Amino acid sequence: MKSADQKAGGSKTNPGNYFEDFFLGQEIIHAVPRTVTTGDVALYTGLTGSRFALPSADSLAQSIGLASSATGMAPVDDLLVFHLVFGRTVADISLNAIANLGYANGKFGVPVFPGDTLSARSTVIGLKENSNGESGVVYVHTTGRNQRQEVVLDYVRWVMVRKRDKASPVPEAKVPNLPASVARADYHLPAGLDLTRYDAALIGQPHLWGDYAVGERIDHVDGMTLEESDHMTATRLYQNNAKVHFNQHSEAKGRFGRRLIYGGHIISLARALSFNGLAPAFKILAINGGRHLNPSFAGDTIYAWSEVIERIPLPGRSDVGALRLKTRAAKDRVCADFPGSENGISAADDSATLVLELDYTVLMKRQD
Amino acid sequence: MKSADQKAGGSKTNPGNYFEDFFLGQEIIHAVPRTVTTGDVALYTGLTGSRFALPSADSLAQSIGLASSATGMAPVDDLLVFHLVFGRTVADISLNAIANLGYANGKFGVPVFPGDTLSARSTVIGLKENSNGESGVVYVHTTGRNQRQEVVLDYVRWVMVRKRDKASPVPEAKVPNLPASVARADYHLPAGLDLTRYDAALIGQPHLWGDYAVGERIDHVDGMTLEESDHMTATRLYQNNAKVHFNQHSEAKGRFGRRLIYGGHIISLARALSFNGLAPAFKILAINGGRHLNPSFAGDTIYAWSEVIERIPLPGRSDVGALRLKTRAAKDRVCADFPGSENGISAADDSATLVLELDYTVLMKRQD
Amino acid sequence: MKSADQKAGGSKTNPGNYFEDFFLGQEIIHAVPRTVTTGDVALYTGLTGSRFALPSADSLAQSIGLASSATGMAPVDDLLVFHLVFGRTVADISLNAIANLGYANGKFGVPVFPGDTLSARSTVIGLKENSNGESGVVYVHTTGRNQRQEVVLDYVRWVMVRKRDKASPVPEAKVPNLPASVARADYHLPAGLDLTRYDAALIGQPHLWGDYAVGERIDHVDGMTLEESDHMTATRLYQNNAKVHFNQHSEAKGRFGRRLIYGGHIISLARALSFNGLAPAFKILAINGGRHLNPSFAGDTIYAWSEVIERIPLPGRSDVGALRLKTRAAKDRVCADFPGSENGISAADDSATLVLELDYTVLMKRQD
Repeated sequence: MKSADQKAGGSKTNPGNYFEDFFLGQEIIHAVPRTVTTGDVALYTGLTGSRFALPSADSLAQSIGLASSATGMAPVDDLLVFHLVFGRTVADISLNAIANLGYANGKFGVPVFPGDTLSARSTVIGLKENSNGESGVVYVHTTGRNQRQEVVLDYVRWVMVRKRDKASPVPEAKVPNLPASVARADYHLPAGLDLTRYDAALIGQPHLWGDYAVGERIDHVDGMTLEESDHMTATRLYQNNAKVHFNQHSEAKGRFGRRLIYGGHIISLARALSFNGLAPAFKILAINGGRHLNPSFAGDTIYAWSEVIERIPLPGRSDVGALRLKTRAAKDRVCADFPGSENGISAADDSATLVLELDYTVLMKRQD
Repeated sequence: MKSADQKAGGSKTNPGNYFEDFFLGQEIIHAVPRTVTTGDVALYTGLTGSRFALPSADSLAQSIGLASSATGMAPVDDLLVFHLVFGRTVADISLNAIANLGYANGKFGVPVFPGDTLSARSTVIGLKENSNGESGVVYVHTTGRNQRQEVVLDYVRWVMVRKRDKASPVPEAKVPNLPASVARADYHLPAGLDLTRYDAALIGQPHLWGDYAVGERIDHVDGMTLEESDHMTATRLYQNNAKVHFNQHSEAKGRFGRRLIYGGHIISLARALSFNGLAPAFKILAINGGRHLNPSFAGDTIYAWSEVIERIPLPGRSDVGALRLKTRAAKDRVCADFPGSENGISAADDSATLVLELDYTVLMKRQD
Repeated sequence: MKSADQKAGGSKTNPGNYFEDFFLGQEIIHAVPRTVTTGDVALYTGLTGSRFALPSADSLAQSIGLASSATGMAPVDDLLVFHLVFGRTVADISLNAIANLGYANGKFGVPVFPGDTLSARSTVIGLKENSNGESGVVYVHTTGRNQRQEVVLDYVRWVMVRKRDKASPVPEAKVPNLPASVARADYHLPAGLDLTRYDAALIGQPHLWGDYAVGERIDHVDGMTLEESDHMTATRLYQNNAKVHFNQHSEAKGRFGRRLIYGGHIISLARALSFNGLAPAFKILAINGGRHLNPSFAGDTIYAWSEVIERIPLPGRSDVGALRLKTRAAKDRVCADFPGSENGISAADDSATLVLELDYTVLMKRQD
């Protein structure tokens, strides 16, 4: 029953799925569940420098009703949850990806606490061959759950995946209908949230929801230089095994001659930098959309700025509101002049230096 | 109510305090409390290589009465406590600092265990404009507390801070009266300490308090080369966001052309290296004083040596004694000939290679 | 009682043992016990990228009966246990080692869970001076135990150690009789192991014990590039203080001009890479032997491939079987053509690029 190929182990290793391996409605159970621990939290802080107060302090989480009722611990950073769920999917979805094209309809569910174990499943919801016949776009809807099968994160992403064989027949194109932003009814407000004892001095900034005006722009000022060791350690922590991040021996002969940095690491750095101006945005409710505009490499310095897109009252809540933001990150370019603003990228220099555009919704305390 | 400046987000970001923003008696509540975890402990070990036995082993902490009565866990490294408390203060005190000039009267309080949440407050206790009118020295007294408001660390530091405007009026100079060393009455001996079951074989060295002679010099032999990723990860772990450590894009145009390493990382490396010769110094009681003599950069190799300054018996204790030490660190220079000894720095080469002088007091078992 | 040498601290520091300091039957209690935590687990994942499911997920460990009955946590990675035990021994055994020559008869004992504290003892079981009279080979049998004194790991290693003085007399040579592989009777099957609920989809690969044929070769495809910060952080985490890994200032003048990477880090990378093809090898039972064939340095990219050496049924168990594997790692060389196969290294290029040959035995689910 063993072929020569199997004898050589060919059948034992995962070559990753190619475009023609996907089909509409395909359900994928991703391997290797992952228990989140305070070790992950420490490493996430060490690699991003995030100073958002909620995942930093059990006492603060307790004071606003968001600590684990079992352990008293703070929930882990929303983006750590994102990366861990995303990491589960890479071996099945994007091992042969040419590019991670976008995200949509990302909804955070129940908070994740140290000790929770995350697993992920995906469904293929769209497929469209590229006109060159060499690749296609795969749309997957991924759901991350904890050990009680409660949803912790739900999102769609689409990636450009190589075809194994240009001649392979492909199914009829289907592009899913994706919302421009997460519907308000889909926001999951964490149970128990009570801001009576909210302390702006500990959160790090006095501003509340009403202090942010639609159209307001915030330059987050600080910059963070990328190192090979940092981005690889972060990406390995998430067990994201996409080859392009780790193998200089092969990448030296590749498209960029260098290891490509996991786009999610840039998202985390942009969010961490955004503390300077958005410290009150203590929790991410939703990722409406996101695009990686350019690759980043070790040696690049990441800057970020944010724009307030929408101020969203939450039904029945006078204590908290949602704020829709667009955060952009640039490399080796300060953001004091808000590159990429005014309906997208225009200046020549912006188009090369912008690396991220992330449209997301955060939770903030309102003035009662 | 929004000015154009606010529209651009200028008011939302923290520009840091300038010299003229400080006033005598000013009380500052630092943002972002921080829960310490075994994740921090692991990362601290991974970044410093510290082998001191007490924070390394719950069983050893239990055997000498210093484990948490609630969890059985060992207390975390004293310097990890220092960095986490210090990290809280940076955004308010030293974002515009030109130099971190010194430390005094540092007293460790109750032990910190994984699960404790640290917060910090500071009082401005001294101000003195520099003669050039462009900057001034700010003295702050900082107190770090756990979630039960017990003091875990109390110290004074002074930093040189830029003025926003050379023409700003400044208050009358006041330089606080600081002790040359922490008063013995201020040593906080951890409750429950019982060395009956002290095991020198596990501590790593047979010597006891009485084996260290005043004037004795110990070359710690080993060296540790600094990497960008290591110092940045350590400094981010402490949520110390001083810009000079992280941003190569801006530092390339700065004073040194390179990212400057957080002085506290050098303190940790010197302490970790000092295990080779000072393994029995299982706990730091006090930081009497400290100075960063030169900047350190990635690529430098740190060496250290120590001198025994004083042997201090502790009232009512025949089982433990305190030892006052001066540890010096040098870069790219072995310390077998004890650079910087003989009343300070003399040799031309010493003045450029010495990076740290730390005067501190440790606890050691005595021969009963 | 203090000599001039002591005054200079010479006697306080550990110069490491030289060949003539060892004697047959010598028992060494290694210093600094080490509590393993989820922080170590996270850092191990971050530094190696390991995706083996058992140490990754408490829920999976619970489902196969291998979680801690006290905490529900998964056992930590077997190689993390190896490195932590090994790390204890370095200051006594290999500080003056020229080379770490080999391992034999390595048997994993009871599983290690976060919260366990590991300590190590060694016995000198062999000594043989080299013909040049400048060094000799020391064979040590090391046992690692948890806080309940249960054996977690037991192995023999031999190292080439410098003589302090070429003229020193040496004892009669004794080379221990070491088994080519661990005896089957010495395999420690973890108590409680129950594969009834084994889920191949979560383990990451459908193959079971019977699917691996003796002689089968598996190219693990992926590569991982080494960074200074990564290998130093890993090695410091294990508190392995061998100087060659950390000090560029001295190594620049040394044999290679560069810092040498701890061979154990290469073992961990090879194992992590082997997930692609050996995901069902959820636990290591034994290390039969191992050799570091060439040094590795930052910048090298590690690849690996494995060969199935033997399929070993376990008495009384129809649900699990043991598989003896030989995994080889190479640097800057893909392993699709299985370098080093056919009775050892032959091709000129193989002899320079192969860095590791590890003979070990893993546990896998059998078709009932």
